[in-house]
Amino acid sequence: MQLSRAEVDDFINRSLAEDIGRGDLTTMVTIPAGTRLRASMVARQEVVVCGIEIAALTFRRVHQEIKVEVKARDGDKVARGAVLAVVEGDARPVLAAERTALNILQHLSGIATEVRKYAEAVEGTGCTLIDTRKTIPTLRNLAKYASFTGGARNHRIRLDDGVLIKDNHIAAAGSLTETVRRAKRATPALTVIEVECDTVEQVKEAAESGVDMILLDNMGVEDLRKAVAIVNKRCRIECSGGVTLETVRDKAMTGVDFISSGRMTQSAPAVDIGLDWG
Amino acid sequence: MQLSRAEVDDFINRSLAEDIGRGDLTTMVTIPAGTRLRASMVARQEVVVCGIEIAALTFRRVHQEIKVEVKARDGDKVARGAVLAVVEGDARPVLAAERTALNILQHLSGIATEVRKYAEAVEGTGCTLIDTRKTIPTLRNLAKYASFTGGARNHRIRLDDGVLIKDNHIAAAGSLTETVRRAKRATPALTVIEVECDTVEQVKEAAESGVDMILLDNMGVEDLRKAVAIVNKRCRIECSGGVTLETVRDKAMTGVDFISSGRMTQSAPAVDIGLDWG
Amino acid sequence: MQLSRAEVDDFINRSLAEDIGRGDLTTMVTIPAGTRLRASMVARQEVVVCGIEIAALTFRRVHQEIKVEVKARDGDKVARGAVLAVVEGDARPVLAAERTALNILQHLSGIATEVRKYAEAVEGTGCTLIDTRKTIPTLRNLAKYASFTGGARNHRIRLDDGVLIKDNHIAAAGSLTETVRRAKRATPALTVIEVECDTVEQVKEAAESGVDMILLDNMGVEDLRKAVAIVNKRCRIECSGGVTLETVRDKAMTGVDFISSGRMTQSAPAVDIGLDWG
Amino acid sequence: MQLSRAEVDDFINRSLAEDIGRGDLTTMVTIPAGTRLRASMVARQEVVVCGIEIAALTFRRVHQEIKVEVKARDGDKVARGAVLAVVEGDARPVLAAERTALNILQHLSGIATEVRKYAEAVEGTGCTLIDTRKTIPTLRNLAKYASFTGGARNHRIRLDDGVLIKDNHIAAAGSLTETVRRAKRATPALTVIEVECDTVEQVKEAAESGVDMILLDNMGVEDLRKAVAIVNKRCRIECSGGVTLETVRDKAMTGVDFISSGRMTQSAPAVDIGLDWG
Amino acid sequence: MQLSRAEVDDFINRSLAEDIGRGDLTTMVTIPAGTRLRASMVARQEVVVCGIEIAALTFRRVHQEIKVEVKARDGDKVARGAVLAVVEGDARPVLAAERTALNILQHLSGIATEVRKYAEAVEGTGCTLIDTRKTIPTLRNLAKYASFTGGARNHRIRLDDGVLIKDNHIAAAGSLTETVRRAKRATPALTVIEVECDTVEQVKEAAESGVDMILLDNMGVEDLRKAVAIVNKRCRIECSGGVTLETVRDKAMTGVDFISSGRMTQSAPAVDIGLDWG
Amino acid sequence: MQLSRAEVDDFINRSLAEDIGRGDLTTMVTIPAGTRLRASMVARQEVVVCGIEIAALTFRRVHQEIKVEVKARDGDKVARGAVLAVVEGDARPVLAAERTALNILQHLSGIATEVRKYAEAVEGTGCTLIDTRKTIPTLRNLAKYASFTGGARNHRIRLDDGVLIKDNHIAAAGSLTETVRRAKRATPALTVIEVECDTVEQVKEAAESGVDMILLDNMGVEDLRKAVAIVNKRCRIECSGGVTLETVRDKAMTGVDFISSGRMTQSAPAVDIGLDWG
Repeated sequence: MQLSRAEVDDFINRSLAEDIGRGDLTTMVTIPAGTRLRASMVARQEVVVCGIEIAALTFRRVHQEIKVEVKARDGDKVARGAVLAVVEGDARPVLAAERTALNILQHLSGIATEVRKYAEAVEGTGCTLIDTRKTIPTLRNLAKYASFTGGARNHRIRLDDGVLIKDNHIAAAGSLTETVRRAKRATPALTVIEVECDTVEQVKEAAESGVDMILLDNMGVEDLRKAVAIVNKRCRIECSGGVTLETVRDKAMTGVDFISSGRMTQSAPAVDIGLDWG
Repeated sequence: MQLSRAEVDDFINRSLAEDIGRGDLTTMVTIPAGTRLRASMVARQEVVVCGIEIAALTFRRVHQEIKVEVKARDGDKVARGAVLAVVEGDARPVLAAERTALNILQHLSGIATEVRKYAEAVEGTGCTLIDTRKTIPTLRNLAKYASFTGGARNHRIRLDDGVLIKDNHIAAAGSLTETVRRAKRATPALTVIEVECDTVEQVKEAAESGVDMILLDNMGVEDLRKAVAIVNKRCRIECSGGVTLETVRDKAMTGVDFISSGRMTQSAPAVDIGLDWG
Repeated sequence: MQLSRAEVDDFINRSLAEDIGRGDLTTMVTIPAGTRLRASMVARQEVVVCGIEIAALTFRRVHQEIKVEVKARDGDKVARGAVLAVVEGDARPVLAAERTALNILQHLSGIATEVRKYAEAVEGTGCTLIDTRKTIPTLRNLAKYASFTGGARNHRIRLDDGVLIKDNHIAAAGSLTETVRRAKRATPALTVIEVECDTVEQVKEAAESGVDMILLDNMGVEDLRKAVAIVNKRCRIECSGGVTLETVRDKAMTGVDFISSGRMTQSAPAVDIGLDWG
Repeated sequence: MQLSRAEVDDFINRSLAEDIGRGDLTTMVTIPAGTRLRASMVARQEVVVCGIEIAALTFRRVHQEIKVEVKARDGDKVARGAVLAVVEGDARPVLAAERTALNILQHLSGIATEVRKYAEAVEGTGCTLIDTRKTIPTLRNLAKYASFTGGARNHRIRLDDGVLIKDNHIAAAGSLTETVRRAKRATPALTVIEVECDTVEQVKEAAESGVDMILLDNMGVEDLRKAVAIVNKRCRIECSGGVTLETVRDKAMTGVDFISSGRMTQSAPAVDIGLDWG
Repeated sequence: MQLSRAEVDDFINRSLAEDIGRGDLTTMVTIPAGTRLRASMVARQEVVVCGIEIAALTFRRVHQEIKVEVKARDGDKVARGAVLAVVEGDARPVLAAERTALNILQHLSGIATEVRKYAEAVEGTGCTLIDTRKTIPTLRNLAKYASFTGGARNHRIRLDDGVLIKDNHIAAAGSLTETVRRAKRATPALTVIEVECDTVEQVKEAAESGVDMILLDNMGVEDLRKAVAIVNKRCRIECSGGVTLETVRDKAMTGVDFISSGRMTQSAPAVDIGLDWG
Repeated sequence: MQLSRAEVDDFINRSLAEDIGRGDLTTMVTIPAGTRLRASMVARQEVVVCGIEIAALTFRRVHQEIKVEVKARDGDKVARGAVLAVVEGDARPVLAAERTALNILQHLSGIATEVRKYAEAVEGTGCTLIDTRKTIPTLRNLAKYASFTGGARNHRIRLDDGVLIKDNHIAAAGSLTETVRRAKRATPALTVIEVECDTVEQVKEAAESGVDMILLDNMGVEDLRKAVAIVNKRCRIECSGGVTLETVRDKAMTGVDFISSGRMTQSAPAVDIGLDWG
């Protein structure tokens, strides 16, 4: 997931608007025009950087002559104390943009930092970490970008990116096989069809249905291995549910192709990044 | 902070748009028109509810004939297993709205649940819990509403809601007293002026400057008590920095009027609320 | 491709706005308030109906009390003289909406009527007719809906719906095999990858690359057959280029899975549908 | 009809957005950053160029450093094989913009090419070719611009551009004369009033009513001549209905001032213009 | 000039948004939910009513269950003390909407009241009062509606509503006659062409140029009479400049068709209309 | 009140759009491309300048190469005949922007000029002139800026800028004291609370309620003095009602802190500023 310039701009504009409103009242009445400031954005803990260019653009959106020298790139893992960027310019817009720029960087880096922990945990297993649609509302694309930056490959970004058949769909259509058949006929020609299986029996039917991918939900390591054997490379396999930093590697080593977790995009805490003046 | 109907609508529309895109492909091709579903939104942990009406509106935005019987109100603290709402209607729109409605409710209730912990910790001290501008970008008003629902009183929602003078402003204007004087002359007539003090010496000057409120940043309990004595009710006092669930009550008992923390709005994890079918 | 209610509404609003502007000057100054009119929308040639509900909504958008009794459904093929809908209501809004409603219906039915000709030509061959991204700018989704209504299955609606590798991409990446490998690693997990082949040699490399689909561009019937044999069901095959009503069936019978044509969405003439008063 | 820069920009933005969506997936994952491309836009048939500057802007909107050397101007009639523009720049945005730029140019040049045929057919008769409100919905202004580029003078662009009284209006107001009188009193002072006449009798009443212009609908050459004689220059005369490339010149030579046709804007096929690489 | 529902809605939304912002803080914290209020909108001076339905909609926009019984219609001239409408409903939204509804009504009625004075002054002279493009920015259509309500006929609403040739245009094109000729060829077929004349000599050339209307700017009564004689009904005549309540009737009696004044739309004072509670 | 660049841009765009529409028809068809013009904006009466930079931006928005040399600054009081700016550039956009730029400058300077009269009348009394929410709908922020430019300090810009308790609020809450108590608990921590008093008795209760500010409405000079004595600096005092240029100074000298008037923003006539060519 790459972000388009238009959506980054919209995000910055909305972020600034909600914070600045009619203007930074304090700065307008206390800082003389022409005062200059210099500050460094500093990581106060180990972080995987995400959003550094967006933060830089945020300063420049308030005043185009603010200079932001970016010292780290999205995806970099930096140690506590690392300088991520140096900001210099007219004091009024620098101060007006400060909180918004930090809020953006702290939030996106928070997600990337969390995702990286999972990505490192599955490294070398041949299994790919993917994300889910559990994200903070209205920030989906940013979350998907941060997740990709952290080291995951994206699953569906929107509901129109693919078909994921669950219990309710099968119940309504009659059978798994019939549901897959219907989906193959009515969707656009480039659509991938995935079906969720909760039991090993379902996996058998799914593997024979011509589906492109199977989602094994909330299965233990033993069942995952059985399912992998049944499928026997006829389609790709994703596993989800109960994925924590403790369990993720064991699950990944069962031979599934993908492993997904919602918590890493929905509940990642903001990381501590501050602005040091002077 | 109350939310206007217009901003709630905009939030719902944007949340649905980013998830549904051109349509819920899976549901469109598998669920026959006219199929009906019934489901309960259930708390899978103890939560302070926030956003239940927004979640209900989310279902109805997708299809106006979906019935949502709301069983809990924003601000209610409910036990694990509590049913928050019962949803019933056409299966296609119910399924299309499911993830978005849950994402909204899990996020907002996450903030309210976190804030409530702090609010309960200061209960009875005479000190009021307030929030900050550390929020997830573009979701400021929702965060302020969730914070208010959780039990905090709001500090500035935007930069134009009041004057908060910090080091940089004082350095630029020359002195704390001069900075306050300037602010009093140039701002709208109903503006409150607050000044941040890092030392007990600054508190003296601030208390004499005619400022409306003082922010004591990162002071220990001892210094907070000294500052309260110096101010002697000439203006209100807020304290911030190093506020955790462990420290918050001791700080609140020093006699300060307000205590603020950014972490509770910026890093609250999503709470676990699910949809049980049938 | 289904159209969301939001995009239909936006299309109607924009269509009406561009035609009505500040108001239907003629009607405002000549028709007394309260005058009523009744009219029938009549096909003046054989047409495949598309947009009849949108046309009905168009009248109601101008005045919600206009009654439109719809007599045909999208996808119906009707004979010359067929009544598609009966409109009745206040004369002013009926007259103000007339041209816009007709323009919509004539254009969309024009596409569906054209596509149906091709769809009928390939009927029973086992080959599926699909459309392309050659559409009138800003009307993509409507064109895709009309094409689906006419009888085609949709190919990519937008560039993010799948990967279609052409000469330029292969040249830049080094080789077909390497290009496919890259695409498989960097795209979202549910992405389909298709590669365009201009020669039978390329088809061999493509079939072995693990690609999901091959596009055979501008090949004659002989080469199409050879390609089908080489691929031997390892992936799906699309054929495009030089597709006319005369050639389409022969091409479809070579064993390719899909056949696509741009002309039917880009150059379909409006069909003749009129409004008969009284 | 000239197009404002704002509406051209909006058209380009919408056209690109509907095609590119979240990004040109193929190009992003296959083309290395910094790869450059050069291509020529070439007419593959005789065309009257329309939209060449819009097409050029379309490339530059995706990436401002793409160079587009425009070789033909809107309104030029060029032979098959003519190079309309040379495009050079970063391969990624050039490829992402390609289809949209071509779709725009093919559609607008299609209209201009069709209109030019009619314009040439009436050349030298003293009669002016004008267009109608039969256009593809939401593309009215672009169609009017293409029509003007092709050689027609515009009739009403929107319903508020003038008064055109038809049967229904007269029936509601009581008589042609009374309808004209009402319109003269209630419209803005610079409004032109035209009345449609289906019979020679109506022409007499219209000519005496003080109307500014008469529309003769679906009259044969004989009746047109009679009407011209009756009017005797008291007002201007437009003729419409049954206008084809075969009939247009004969009708134009009857002495009417204007001749209008809807088909040329509503059903013009896209012309064949392609991009040759290298 | 009639206002479309869409622009009225947009005006109300913007008016309320700029006043209410995040909510009527006072009302939210002081008025218990469910409190009801009743109030009358009363003219505190003689006024020509304009905007009464817009004011009523303003209340209902804030809360759809507010009842507004409208007692006067736009265009009515009412005496001091007249009740224009009775408002009843939930106290919170009534109070939140009060200032905005009054501001709208006071402003629009202010214009209508001012225009009516001029309209009455020219009554019976056969000359029609028209307005100009001198209006308060962004409120053009509302001003034109208020002016029409007051009793004037509208001149151009926008620059694309007709051609008005002045000194600068003639200087650039070479001569008045040539300028008129150019305009006749290049504008849409229903365009009226007016030319401004400052001297009696210019009037002669204009009358012979085939122009549709002449604007006599800043001429005294004597020159107006001469101009009327020269034109001798070959085209319509407008007079402007130095038009006051004292001079307007004398100018109107010279035989000109139209008389225009900018001051009545640009500088009309708000009229005094208040809300009486209970 | 400072205006943000975004709202100035939006205001200019809307102002130009409503005047220019599809283009300045007259200029397009009469002025040859490349013609240049030079003009001076001249005050035709004594004015306090407001909006000169906005007017300059208006010209440049239509064509970025128009040069506007600004000769006066917002807030300057200039004599009749003063040149405010010199405009030079391509004749077409200069003429197209002329009326809009003048309308903006005439309106905003009208308000500033009116406010300055009141500001000068209270100069040296120690009382501060403030404005109200009586403004022309949708132009609130511009009016507040013009008022500030004229010499007033702003009162509430929106309803969420502070609490102003009136009769209705007190009646609903029970008592003045209780109303103030409620407001103090439920509003954001930086909110100022003001209460309107109509009698000297109410002033006593208000002064003891802990309110931040008292509004004395429609009191004579004698009562104002009594109220000032009662309050005895426990809170700030505003006086409003019956404020005219004749009465304002006497009221200001009673010792009240603020004096407010709605008429100066709601009914200020446009000042006469013109464009002299050459």
